Amino acid sequence: MNKTAVIEKIIGSPMLPKKDKAKAFAPSNIALCKYWGKRDPVLNLPMTGSLSVSLNPKGSETQINIQDAKEDTIIVDGEKIKNDTTFGKNLIHYLDLFRAPTSPRLTITTCNNIPVAAGFASSASGFGALTKALNQLYDWQLPQKQLSILARLGSGSACRSLWNGFVEWHQGSDPLGMDSHGEPLKTTWPQLCIGIVTISSQKKPYSSREAMAQTLETSTLYQAWPKQVEQDLKAIKKAIHEKNFLELGRHSEQNANAMHATLMASWPSISYHLPQTIEIIQKIWAIRKKGLDVYYTQDAGPNIKLLFLEKDKKTVAENFSCSDIIQPFSTNY
Amino acid sequence: MNKTAVIEKIIGSPMLPKKDKAKAFAPSNIALCKYWGKRDPVLNLPMTGSLSVSLNPKGSETQINIQDAKEDTIIVDGEKIKNDTTFGKNLIHYLDLFRAPTSPRLTITTCNNIPVAAGFASSASGFGALTKALNQLYDWQLPQKQLSILARLGSGSACRSLWNGFVEWHQGSDPLGMDSHGEPLKTTWPQLCIGIVTISSQKKPYSSREAMAQTLETSTLYQAWPKQVEQDLKAIKKAIHEKNFLELGRHSEQNANAMHATLMASWPSISYHLPQTIEIIQKIWAIRKKGLDVYYTQDAGPNIKLLFLEKDKKTVAENFSCSDIIQPFSTNY
Repeated sequence: MNKTAVIEKIIGSPMLPKKDKAKAFAPSNIALCKYWGKRDPVLNLPMTGSLSVSLNPKGSETQINIQDAKEDTIIVDGEKIKNDTTFGKNLIHYLDLFRAPTSPRLTITTCNNIPVAAGFASSASGFGALTKALNQLYDWQLPQKQLSILARLGSGSACRSLWNGFVEWHQGSDPLGMDSHGEPLKTTWPQLCIGIVTISSQKKPYSSREAMAQTLETSTLYQAWPKQVEQDLKAIKKAIHEKNFLELGRHSEQNANAMHATLMASWPSISYHLPQTIEIIQKIWAIRKKGLDVYYTQDAGPNIKLLFLEKDKKTVAENFSCSDIIQPFSTNY
Repeated sequence: MNKTAVIEKIIGSPMLPKKDKAKAFAPSNIALCKYWGKRDPVLNLPMTGSLSVSLNPKGSETQINIQDAKEDTIIVDGEKIKNDTTFGKNLIHYLDLFRAPTSPRLTITTCNNIPVAAGFASSASGFGALTKALNQLYDWQLPQKQLSILARLGSGSACRSLWNGFVEWHQGSDPLGMDSHGEPLKTTWPQLCIGIVTISSQKKPYSSREAMAQTLETSTLYQAWPKQVEQDLKAIKKAIHEKNFLELGRHSEQNANAMHATLMASWPSISYHLPQTIEIIQKIWAIRKKGLDVYYTQDAGPNIKLLFLEKDKKTVAENFSCSDIIQPFSTNY
């Protein structure tokens, strides 16, 4: 299946902009139950469902301006990105999906308040924000679910960055992926805290796309991953609805470990762990043994995201001095 | 099934010693295709087959002396071990399997030239040597395969420590385990080198027995482990017979990583990796990228065992200055 067929179903033919500029923000998100493996690498359709929590106010703000030039201009965090880089090509390919050939070229300016390509889901918030901005530029007036499908075509996990709070990405079964999109959980958890422990904000050694493909191709243990997700997704949703933090922490941590385990068992083995990642994980386990309810999750990068409740904020901050604490459901923003 | 039934089949009733002392050596062994998980935790029957190479001259020498005392005496590396420790109880339970109640008590003196309980298979060589010494003490005159079955009752991987060289442990299907024993491969590989990189010789935080049980109980990914072993065991045997080092290295390394992956995906997660373990692994990968054919395996401990050929001995020694190089098939010992 190709992307054009999906676009035609959602917005019809490629078109000309209705406005000359647009701007939108989308939050970064971290998966508590991970997305790992594509059943369709063109449409970014996942092997399993997944579930995230958005990291508002961390995320991406993207502005689109119509310009009088032969080529698009891409600026990320103040830096001009060449159009012939992988990133540039992907972005322009995405813009081309929606616009008529005679349509004016665009300047895309994105500002992230999270490090890029270091496992902080900057591509998720980036494509989320871009899709929301395109919705304004073309005046599609699409519902969020449709935007979620479009954002997925840019980057799989971007389909979860259309909302704040908990978002489930449905696996779906439609070959075109019309049933594979984000859906927010109708619940909040004001006490939930996430502590970002940045070990390295360098670009990761393997892209998620490459790493997923290699895992599917070479990791025998991956055969058991869908079953792992089935168990964890159910348990995490139950824990969220019951506000059972120990269950949330346990299943989020085990799910992340199982994802990294499928990577470790690939050939060649893929490891996002730096020595300091192991140090932090051992520290979390040691502190938890002493009675502090702190768990972690880890994405495709060396950094660790702590999960804990507001009551333990002070203790966590003392023990992990370098962590950046976010309360996704706080009303203080 | 219990151990007594197995003993009865092999040696008949418990008996009195025929000699007043005996002494034997058994080599340590490292698995290239790992043993991980018991289908019978009493008889130490494995979920899958496995394959090792013995580390001669590294191993254990065990001496047995009849003594005129009410209790057995256990001495390991010059240190008296109390009989009511886990180690002491296990050893005495093993001795009791073979002896009549009126039989004299024994002094068991073991000397290891490898660190104990740090993933160097000291329990394998220890029970291997003890079983060989008991064979002399009671004058059983048993063939090696029968001794291998008896050694397995003490420690699973001990059944591979009855021989030098490559040894396959057959999974078997008999409920009593009479077909689950070591068998040497009829081939040598004089150029094969193993470099032991000792990161820590401290006692490991979890025993293999506990860790295996927890993996089987809680690691969903473990469901794919038997398939992993099936592939690797076949590939490793083929590589040994064809002297295809790259295939041997690749499948040994992937098998070890997959074993640690099933542990990582357990709950609570089990990790034998120290930060320095990650450093060494990253170093191996980097050096391999530069063209040096060096691979690794890792057992239930933080230490790394390098696999390489004699032609690269000098380069490996230069890059991993702290490694202890063993040539299992060298005739220089």
